[in-house]
Amino acid sequence: MNVRIADQSVPHRTVTFDADRNVIELIDQRRLPHQFQIFEAPDFRATARAIRDMIVRGAGAIGATAAYGLAQGARAFRGHDLRRFEAQLERVFGVIHDARPTAVDPFNAMNAVLAALPPGETVAERQALALAAAEEFALGNVRECQAIGRHGARLIKSGMRILTHCNAGWLAFVDYGSATAPLYTAHDRGRRFHVYCDETRPRSQGATLTAWELAQHGIAHEIIADNAAGHLMQRGDIDLVIVGSDRTLGRTGEVANKIGTYTKAVLAARHGIPFYVAIPWSTLDWTLRKGREIIIEERSPDEVLGAWGIPRTRGRRTGPRPGKSPEPIYVRVANPTSTARNPGFDLTPPDLITGIITPAGIFRPQDLWRHRKELRAGLSHPGG
Amino acid sequence: MNVRIADQSVPHRTVTFDADRNVIELIDQRRLPHQFQIFEAPDFRATARAIRDMIVRGAGAIGATAAYGLAQGARAFRGHDLRRFEAQLERVFGVIHDARPTAVDPFNAMNAVLAALPPGETVAERQALALAAAEEFALGNVRECQAIGRHGARLIKSGMRILTHCNAGWLAFVDYGSATAPLYTAHDRGRRFHVYCDETRPRSQGATLTAWELAQHGIAHEIIADNAAGHLMQRGDIDLVIVGSDRTLGRTGEVANKIGTYTKAVLAARHGIPFYVAIPWSTLDWTLRKGREIIIEERSPDEVLGAWGIPRTRGRRTGPRPGKSPEPIYVRVANPTSTARNPGFDLTPPDLITGIITPAGIFRPQDLWRHRKELRAGLSHPGG
Repeated sequence: MNVRIADQSVPHRTVTFDADRNVIELIDQRRLPHQFQIFEAPDFRATARAIRDMIVRGAGAIGATAAYGLAQGARAFRGHDLRRFEAQLERVFGVIHDARPTAVDPFNAMNAVLAALPPGETVAERQALALAAAEEFALGNVRECQAIGRHGARLIKSGMRILTHCNAGWLAFVDYGSATAPLYTAHDRGRRFHVYCDETRPRSQGATLTAWELAQHGIAHEIIADNAAGHLMQRGDIDLVIVGSDRTLGRTGEVANKIGTYTKAVLAARHGIPFYVAIPWSTLDWTLRKGREIIIEERSPDEVLGAWGIPRTRGRRTGPRPGKSPEPIYVRVANPTSTARNPGFDLTPPDLITGIITPAGIFRPQDLWRHRKELRAGLSHPGG
Repeated sequence: MNVRIADQSVPHRTVTFDADRNVIELIDQRRLPHQFQIFEAPDFRATARAIRDMIVRGAGAIGATAAYGLAQGARAFRGHDLRRFEAQLERVFGVIHDARPTAVDPFNAMNAVLAALPPGETVAERQALALAAAEEFALGNVRECQAIGRHGARLIKSGMRILTHCNAGWLAFVDYGSATAPLYTAHDRGRRFHVYCDETRPRSQGATLTAWELAQHGIAHEIIADNAAGHLMQRGDIDLVIVGSDRTLGRTGEVANKIGTYTKAVLAARHGIPFYVAIPWSTLDWTLRKGREIIIEERSPDEVLGAWGIPRTRGRRTGPRPGKSPEPIYVRVANPTSTARNPGFDLTPPDLITGIITPAGIFRPQDLWRHRKELRAGLSHPGG
């Protein structure tokens, strides 16, 4: 997407591979929205560290980064010995996989690259194929998000007030995002609407990342406390809700997503407001039989007990200028002698979901299983 | 309630009048939970400033402070001229009223003191009557909260998990609080339960004030993000919800309270969890015919865009020791080029409310109007 740098609008992806220098370029997401800075990973170990330290985060983005990282490691190999080349690939795979061992996307992405390398070729040919496969993986992610954008944009009319939760934006993918793709597509088609970003405590990804993305794209928006959505719905100020998903069960249509998603779905249902979930293929889980089988991660209490931000400087506004803004600091908000519970995700049942926006079209959550053949194949829906 | 100071548990009210010195003592609520400090107002102008600067906040607490402030100003008068004494009273009333001109409690409280001053007495007698009337007003507030505690405690059994929102605690009143009074009473009767405090963004009164109160009282509790309550209810982890109210409509049973209350009521109804609202008499509004007539205050966007807290100091924990903790600072969390909408209150309809806990007993919200005579008189309910 376009990023404003020094008053210029520059197209930028979350993850880019500079093949000439064999360097992976990442938008440093730990510094957003207060600083816009590009992190350069000169070798696969630096790439793995960038995944581990969450310089890059979001399922699609870390998948593409891992795919590029595997190609990067393969291309750094010097020599012609195929067996030693294989050993190098294995080493790279292990190091990148260990960066976030419970995340499934890096694992799947690297396996997709490996699957594109036929045996028996020369090292040079295999290096070239690895690069092509990683590029194809990243482009596939972009195409999926673009398709989500095309299908979802049909839901958006000028004048609408749209609620979104957390960040399922282009920063979490290679480009366009999932929940944000319909917004960008509709905006690029000239439709003008207003977005309410749930701040999304405790990590505030709505107030930081989604708001930053929308501001970059010139989409009208306001941040609201997570407490305010119900009131706005009650007053008739919200027409549509679009969120992303961390895992969607193909068998049941249940959606696991950032904590608070379920609450917004309950409120939307009470007020008859359409509630959509936008997902790329990698989000669909066809094996789990019940959402209750998903283990909900309990995260650090510190996230709930405080906040990260830039201390207010008197007299001037701080902006996201590269290298010039102060570093965010952590402040303890809560009573010092209390602790917190911090579940990271919740589960939304299918009866609260109007539709699932996939790259192949929009489906009722209960119909995913019936359409599983075409959805698993990732085919474009006839209606799309 | 009891406050732990230098490892000792000391009884303390939110507002105390030291009649010997003619000084009002207030717990400085701007410094809680990070510092426990007593603010002394040596004259009625300082008392007015303390109300204006929110050193004291909460309807019951500012009412009692205003009542004491009027007595304080009356007692500072030197001389025997009744006419000049009347003029002084008028001046004091005006200065204190102007501290928070839209708040109804200081106005009602001072009128209650004035009503206790029969004409024709000497200045000295009138000064003594003003002091007695202010003390009676504050004690009345304490007795109401104690009665709420007795009625509400019947709802609480050992082992329960109870959700509360914002701070309707003793800090907002003279003592005991409204929503917290049943918790304190049940705990003092030996019942052991667990409280979840909604952090209550954007001002975080749950994470700061309510958590501090519960910690002082030794009640087991955890703070949760406002996003987490729905998930906990879905998992069966919440048995009861008790909140306070800023205004309750006697005609309709609608409850205006801190933003996010409506959301918790919708969630509780979906999960069949009892939802109670605890109120003293001053909260009941018998005139308004529809909740929609209440103007919902839109507060500063800065509250949503950032947070107040203590910067983390490495190696040691900061605690609420008098005068020793650093000052809270404001940090900007959100994207610097975005703004926010910040409604301060929302409206919960009666069909989502199991019962209203009043000093005279627990009533269905729809029954308030039918019982208006006894409720207006503030009589104890036969069943209470």
